[in-house]
Amino acid sequence: MPSLEFFRLQTREEVLAHYDRFGPVGVEEMDLADAGGRVLAAPIMAPEDVPGFLRATMDGYAVRAQDTFGAGVGTPQYLEIKGEVPMGAAPARGVGPGETLRVATGAMLPPGADAVVMVEYTAEHPDGTLEVRRAVAPGENVLKPGEDVARGELLFPAGRRLRPQEIGLLAALGIRRLAAYKKPRVVILSTGDEIIPLDGTPAPGQVRDANAYLAAAQVAEWGGLPLMHGIIPDDFDALRKTLAAALDAADLILISGGSSVGVRDLTLTAIKDLPDSEVLVHGVALRPGKPTILAALGHTPPKPLLGLPGHPASAAVVMEVLGRPLLSRLAGVNDPSPWGRTVTAVLSRNLAGATGREDYVRVRLRREGATLWADPILGSSGLLSPLVKSDGLVMIPLGVEGRFKEEVVGVQLFGGS
Amino acid sequence: MPSLEFFRLQTREEVLAHYDRFGPVGVEEMDLADAGGRVLAAPIMAPEDVPGFLRATMDGYAVRAQDTFGAGVGTPQYLEIKGEVPMGAAPARGVGPGETLRVATGAMLPPGADAVVMVEYTAEHPDGTLEVRRAVAPGENVLKPGEDVARGELLFPAGRRLRPQEIGLLAALGIRRLAAYKKPRVVILSTGDEIIPLDGTPAPGQVRDANAYLAAAQVAEWGGLPLMHGIIPDDFDALRKTLAAALDAADLILISGGSSVGVRDLTLTAIKDLPDSEVLVHGVALRPGKPTILAALGHTPPKPLLGLPGHPASAAVVMEVLGRPLLSRLAGVNDPSPWGRTVTAVLSRNLAGATGREDYVRVRLRREGATLWADPILGSSGLLSPLVKSDGLVMIPLGVEGRFKEEVVGVQLFGGS
Repeated sequence: MPSLEFFRLQTREEVLAHYDRFGPVGVEEMDLADAGGRVLAAPIMAPEDVPGFLRATMDGYAVRAQDTFGAGVGTPQYLEIKGEVPMGAAPARGVGPGETLRVATGAMLPPGADAVVMVEYTAEHPDGTLEVRRAVAPGENVLKPGEDVARGELLFPAGRRLRPQEIGLLAALGIRRLAAYKKPRVVILSTGDEIIPLDGTPAPGQVRDANAYLAAAQVAEWGGLPLMHGIIPDDFDALRKTLAAALDAADLILISGGSSVGVRDLTLTAIKDLPDSEVLVHGVALRPGKPTILAALGHTPPKPLLGLPGHPASAAVVMEVLGRPLLSRLAGVNDPSPWGRTVTAVLSRNLAGATGREDYVRVRLRREGATLWADPILGSSGLLSPLVKSDGLVMIPLGVEGRFKEEVVGVQLFGGS
Repeated sequence: MPSLEFFRLQTREEVLAHYDRFGPVGVEEMDLADAGGRVLAAPIMAPEDVPGFLRATMDGYAVRAQDTFGAGVGTPQYLEIKGEVPMGAAPARGVGPGETLRVATGAMLPPGADAVVMVEYTAEHPDGTLEVRRAVAPGENVLKPGEDVARGELLFPAGRRLRPQEIGLLAALGIRRLAAYKKPRVVILSTGDEIIPLDGTPAPGQVRDANAYLAAAQVAEWGGLPLMHGIIPDDFDALRKTLAAALDAADLILISGGSSVGVRDLTLTAIKDLPDSEVLVHGVALRPGKPTILAALGHTPPKPLLGLPGHPASAAVVMEVLGRPLLSRLAGVNDPSPWGRTVTAVLSRNLAGATGREDYVRVRLRREGATLWADPILGSSGLLSPLVKSDGLVMIPLGVEGRFKEEVVGVQLFGGS
């Protein structure tokens, strides 16, 4: 007998709290050139200073700053030009009092120099004298050793997703190989006797397996490896056997497609029949998305199973709201940016909320002068076309009656928008 | 002699206008399962109706809506249950006046039925009679054939980037293969005698090739294929020869690294020496990013070359502001969402703009209660670490003196945030 708790709808927060029992799915080594978007599996310390030497950030002249004090347009100072610093090599000589060397951006400063006068504020005289028309402070137009990164500094903690700038900094430090969490393998199964493969021609009463493709594209976009394992007939033995086999191949199982109560009950029975399985959630307080299932399968460690609602719009919303954070968890992401995918816009009409459920309304964004409008796109959650017309979701929290026309709202953007 | 125009800084809008001469780089066929994030090369029309039949969107009973008129809790109507509709098959019989068939979500409605009464509003009596406690309107709880997509309808124009929901809709229509624009091949070259490969140990005056890795990660994230072609010495012949060879392999050439005026001049001379080359931009009114170069190479069709500033932060900003739209152009994207990567936040301090230049300031986002603050991250554009600490950019337009503390600003998010 299922416990009564299974029939209580759980809130988004309650569902997310269950994710604590799942963790990153493994570690692999890779080249830095392949690590963009990946998640660090171990903290990285800086093995050396960046820059490694006192470096010019402007084209000009390496000087002792004190030699320029008092210099101005009407009161130039004069220095003796002793040559130039070659790029990519140590200077052949230092800069003594009253002396200067030409430097290009990126060049190493010669011993004795502590600043660079920009070429714009100088003139070279035929006798090898430099006229300096502006004073510089010590450290001006130079980078000190370790100013960007100091040796031994914690660069990035484990769980950091590597953006292009992180890749650039690791390159500057010569870190060519790193350990990242593996991409979670996500087995996608479809259920429902009415579902046929993509290459079939639907007979009356049949539909193609659209939800599995939608979910697979979401998984790939969010950094997972989708593995489409096909369609299972509405049959207990087939379902149980397929689930047991999927457990070997998967870090996460998504069951998609079965939209009737009968298929969902069958799925639930098959899950419960697996050894060491535990149904954590059976029904969520979301609209759309109520018939969502979350289960933990096995124990070394447990693997999550997410049973998606059958309606495509419901499945897509559940994937955005619950699937994406689960994938982030399995991918080892620490503290995913909460603002990364939310824009603010002005609602173009009143929206009533759903009693007792957190409500997600699809919206299209429309710019009109300085205002970004969010136009609700209504329509049955059995339809795909409203999703295609939408840029994202507006959420009406639990216990809130609705949102008003001209209210400023956050719009959680769909991927790829 | 270079014309004087080369020395006038061009605005962002002027630079973007040059992109009109470049276009998508070619077309390839692929499976739908591989098409997530890709850009359609041809419009797609719906080959059939979705759904293809009158479909139940709820579990319940298929009825003639008029048979339920007047039904209420105190005034139930009674119908005769004639069996059920199997999933994935045509119903064996129709529904006559006073009759009903059980249907599950997704099942085909039998001839004669035009609505579904949800199971919640019914009771089955032992004699095979259904008690209906709520009236339904014709079309209630069903999807009509073609309601999602009508046969012959333009689904997507060419230039549409395929998000997961577009993939789902194409799957529903059985479209397994499609024509997408090829991913632009982006050859990345570094210049500068001070630049060494990643696996080298920098001698005094040398630095590793960080900018090329940063640019490659950006290109990959934005849907291009980065091809790292290594470091060219500061030598006219080497540069010219490498550029000529890169033209065969590339749809876009990025030159990264050379930060001194001398290297930039050499690059410019080498570009001008290539047959059919045209320097379109030499200097942009952006801060950071002034020493940017844009050129068109060859003529069948011309290929763009973008010369990036040498400072890493400048290069990263130029890639975001100018490189990304150029890549979108080459990828065939039509109308990239202008809001897709912009969040609004409140500036936490005053910012002065740059005279005569559009100014981009790195910011970190910080949530405090209901407010999303944008904290400016200052520091030389020669540094990588401020970029790593930032979530995005705030732009101060040309001719605007600055932005004020507590002003609401748009933050253009970096990728992966």
